Amino acid sequence: MDGAPIYAALEAGGTKMVFGVGRWDERGSTWHILERVTLPTQTPHETIPAISDFFAKQSYGTLQALGIASFGPLDLSPESAQFGSITTTPKRAWRHYPLKKVLEAHLGVPVAIDTDVAGAALGEARYGAGKGARHLAYMTVGTGIGVGIIINGAIARGLTHPEFGHIYVRTSPGDDFPGVCPYHGDCLEGLASGPAIEKRTGARGEALSSDHPVWDHVAYVLGEAVVTLLLSVGPEKVILGGGVMKQASLFPRIRRHVLASLNGYLVHPLLPERIDELIVPPGLGDLAGLYGALELARMYKNG
Amino acid sequence: MDGAPIYAALEAGGTKMVFGVGRWDERGSTWHILERVTLPTQTPHETIPAISDFFAKQSYGTLQALGIASFGPLDLSPESAQFGSITTTPKRAWRHYPLKKVLEAHLGVPVAIDTDVAGAALGEARYGAGKGARHLAYMTVGTGIGVGIIINGAIARGLTHPEFGHIYVRTSPGDDFPGVCPYHGDCLEGLASGPAIEKRTGARGEALSSDHPVWDHVAYVLGEAVVTLLLSVGPEKVILGGGVMKQASLFPRIRRHVLASLNGYLVHPLLPERIDELIVPPGLGDLAGLYGALELARMYKNG
Repeated sequence: MDGAPIYAALEAGGTKMVFGVGRWDERGSTWHILERVTLPTQTPHETIPAISDFFAKQSYGTLQALGIASFGPLDLSPESAQFGSITTTPKRAWRHYPLKKVLEAHLGVPVAIDTDVAGAALGEARYGAGKGARHLAYMTVGTGIGVGIIINGAIARGLTHPEFGHIYVRTSPGDDFPGVCPYHGDCLEGLASGPAIEKRTGARGEALSSDHPVWDHVAYVLGEAVVTLLLSVGPEKVILGGGVMKQASLFPRIRRHVLASLNGYLVHPLLPERIDELIVPPGLGDLAGLYGALELARMYKNG
Repeated sequence: MDGAPIYAALEAGGTKMVFGVGRWDERGSTWHILERVTLPTQTPHETIPAISDFFAKQSYGTLQALGIASFGPLDLSPESAQFGSITTTPKRAWRHYPLKKVLEAHLGVPVAIDTDVAGAALGEARYGAGKGARHLAYMTVGTGIGVGIIINGAIARGLTHPEFGHIYVRTSPGDDFPGVCPYHGDCLEGLASGPAIEKRTGARGEALSSDHPVWDHVAYVLGEAVVTLLLSVGPEKVILGGGVMKQASLFPRIRRHVLASLNGYLVHPLLPERIDELIVPPGLGDLAGLYGALELARMYKNG
């Protein structure tokens, strides 16, 4: 375990765990990922020892800190006794699991934790498509819809972490789909997530051609969500990722809907001509969460 | 002009200008407002000299800085040549008026500027109903709807200042009012501002009894806006002010709608039992903007 200072990262997802170690390159102001491992997410009893072992046995250098970007919901109130625990997830084995405390005890290094989307937003803001932006939103559209928000370079979190996937939005004329969200029916996630698309069409999104009419409905509600982001926290970059966004025709449709919906109201050099620079795909691909987790670790270590 | 250090504040509104001077009480961590003047807003040619004269002739002490909380839209991009100017207001005489630059030149002291609602949000967050909250939203519902957002104690502003009054929200069943917003029709402001209420009913809000059915529609859409705030930036206090909110029955209606709309989704000690502490009226009444402007001045002066 002796040697050069290195950082540990864990992107804890509902279906897989991605973890690894990285070296901070001060001169290049970037990360070098030294090793990365992916495991299916089973129970904590099976999964956590495998992760701990990896970090304990790695021989790249001396671990400084671990950053976790985790599925949730998470308790992230610093004053809470459950700080760093998963809370009310439908995944029973992980319910109320004290992820941060357990890994702190196993590894003996400081452990920083935030949501998976906050981690991805941070990674993209500092090393990806949002490099240089002080205000950014990262929205992942997949099994669920999650949003991470960066304001003045830092992760924004108030009463709870953002649950922006559950806002209500306008729907397109003729879209009377009742939605699939067990809490809200036709909230954003209920209308535009992967399961919503499957329920709307009987087929998974990746099996649908780009001219299937469902994409109009999906682009409309995702566009409405982007408009609400622009009118509230005003991101300089809106990064759209996740499985559903692999349907690349969504990007031009969403951009068109955003301009139509704003109707010239926001005055900014990026609008309308440069909206392609405002609403963009991720720059780090599947590595955004891991970069973000490394960055969480480094920020935490350096106060 | 010699003597104790004092600060100047200007709350620049579309119908009136409220300005004055205050002394910062370091021990009590509060402001003492020494004098306050209100003038109708006319053209800059008439109004600005009156304001400058007041500050030039005051004899309370030595002016350290001026803070402005102004109607807008404003250009608040620090890198812009028009930084601190009013931009595309319908008030022709004030269009593109360089408010900050002119007052800086007249007074010879540093001038800080932000939006009227950002100023009110800052005032309420530090000295009013939001004292102690690190994350807060202040929404004023009057001739228009504006929102100021405080995150981690500081005014949040991204691409532009928040234009949250123009988000689209769900409307209550049976509410088919087309709205009055010249840009968007039935956006939040188009549905729930003072002019919207007057157009909906043929009467001004203050003339309508608390059991008029319009309040159900208004509480519904304002409640939806509060839900969107809670799910995005997560304020610990949502302060609702402005003329429309003088209809006090809106508060319990909005709180009920927020809980119904969230449907148990957000887990936080304030929900549901203590929602009365989460959604509240202003604590500083009409002085929120002036306190905020004084605070802007002090923050700017002290870097």
